Amino acid sequence: MPAFPQRAVIREVGLRDGLQSIRTIVPTERKFDWIRDAYAAGQREIEVGSFVPARLLPQLADTAELVAYAKTLPGLFVSVLVPNLKGAERAIETQADLMLVPLSASRAHSLANLRKTPEEVVAEVARMRAARDASGSRTMIEGGIGTAFGCTIQGRVDPADVLRYMQALLDAGADRVSIADTVGYAGPSAVRDLFEKARVIAGERFWCGHFHDTRGLALANVYAALETGVARFDATLAGIGGCPHAPGASGNASSEDLAFMLADMGIDTGIDIPALLNLRAKLARWLDGETLRGALALAGLPVTYESTAAIEA
Amino acid sequence: MPAFPQRAVIREVGLRDGLQSIRTIVPTERKFDWIRDAYAAGQREIEVGSFVPARLLPQLADTAELVAYAKTLPGLFVSVLVPNLKGAERAIETQADLMLVPLSASRAHSLANLRKTPEEVVAEVARMRAARDASGSRTMIEGGIGTAFGCTIQGRVDPADVLRYMQALLDAGADRVSIADTVGYAGPSAVRDLFEKARVIAGERFWCGHFHDTRGLALANVYAALETGVARFDATLAGIGGCPHAPGASGNASSEDLAFMLADMGIDTGIDIPALLNLRAKLARWLDGETLRGALALAGLPVTYESTAAIEA
Repeated sequence: MPAFPQRAVIREVGLRDGLQSIRTIVPTERKFDWIRDAYAAGQREIEVGSFVPARLLPQLADTAELVAYAKTLPGLFVSVLVPNLKGAERAIETQADLMLVPLSASRAHSLANLRKTPEEVVAEVARMRAARDASGSRTMIEGGIGTAFGCTIQGRVDPADVLRYMQALLDAGADRVSIADTVGYAGPSAVRDLFEKARVIAGERFWCGHFHDTRGLALANVYAALETGVARFDATLAGIGGCPHAPGASGNASSEDLAFMLADMGIDTGIDIPALLNLRAKLARWLDGETLRGALALAGLPVTYESTAAIEA
Repeated sequence: MPAFPQRAVIREVGLRDGLQSIRTIVPTERKFDWIRDAYAAGQREIEVGSFVPARLLPQLADTAELVAYAKTLPGLFVSVLVPNLKGAERAIETQADLMLVPLSASRAHSLANLRKTPEEVVAEVARMRAARDASGSRTMIEGGIGTAFGCTIQGRVDPADVLRYMQALLDAGADRVSIADTVGYAGPSAVRDLFEKARVIAGERFWCGHFHDTRGLALANVYAALETGVARFDATLAGIGGCPHAPGASGNASSEDLAFMLADMGIDTGIDIPALLNLRAKLARWLDGETLRGALALAGLPVTYESTAAIEA
């Protein structure tokens, strides 16, 4: 049996992938609360927003302020999503630690969602890399390959395409690459197969999996990915969000359920789960009326649960 | 990486583990409909009820009639739960194909739920085996070890106890043994560890896993179990049921979500998922007002889904 990583990172993407799908505009002060509480609960990687035009996503218009705030918390690794060079320039300006550039392996989804072909995204990453290097910035570039397990518009997506785009992103200068099941089509065998091949191509530079729980398989998919050595996963508190461009898709992996599974497996995430559940209860008040997900908040921790998290609050 | 079984069985336990937790008494004719439709959708193993006193579980009072009906469907393997020798005698009488005898590895849960110590259950299995053999019956005996991953009353359950009871059940004459996460405490690493050890003890006689989705881990647990070679899983349509004696526990693995995961993994279950979803829609009408679970029924099948089931309807 394959060994599991000893440590894993849950990258909180609720402030971006979660809030962008929700009509409620959460005030910046509350987002500060979220970031502060997540940090206090032990989370050390947070995607705080997206550098897209405010008229497209008014929910995320305060991303620059959030980066600035998050950067004041020692040891917090702050990432943002950027769709293009203009966004990348803002990420560099704000000194985000990482900018995630989405590429959709489904050509149909890419055109519908990003208004670019995958090849055009690769070319944009090369321009971002040049801009980053010219500026002397240390902001890392992550190429995130979405619709990697199929697409609601195009249908099947060839794993060979995913791997080809991964190589192209690395060749264009991406420091890191990741794979996302944007529409919730992945099952654990497919994850194991694709992630194994991705590790061969990118080694440690393939560092993150992003799963949606649309068909209840997010945690099984994480388990399969862990067996391939990948040890970083996107998730959102209370499972909020999902891709607004893929009809029927809904629900990211829930951060608190994922934290519980990893803790139960003896994999250290540094997360204090009761503290994360307290933050979730606050989020439920902030997003009153929105659908929240996740099983742990309903069931509670087992009586046998023992926290092993070492929190530097 | 470990290989997966090529085929797996989803044993439908909704008529027993599901309906026993629900106040609504489903009329016998509708249970016939359920069994007939499940069979038509390709399910070939169904636990139709429990031989317990009708005053304790009036929902399951028609178990003998259900066995008789289910036995008319060619190739359907019909099981029942029996708590004691008296129940076993009825199972033998009705010619059920298998009787499942629950043993709780948590002594506290065993006393609270079964009013017997685990050792007393083992002794009862020996008496059942003697009665079965004396009658010339072919009804198989399965010892089902519950609270195998922890207990809401007792807390921790030592895996060594689970394995010791497994050996004792086999020594007492059980033909098969299985492991159940009665209260939803299992995580996939614990499953992998315990199931590997159980296979060493019982080989092919360890044949079934029973997982609750209380903390969202049922399907990850199935995946981990598949890696150990176990290829039979209890599940309930729409995830109904769970242990009524364990506070907070709720929700079996959902048959339709499990069928989808296995199909996606290329593991043949013989199940026609759209037909199973149709049956689920009927069940939703029969159980109007009850909480149903499962993600697939909400999200629908992916556009890429291709049925590979060969149905002999």
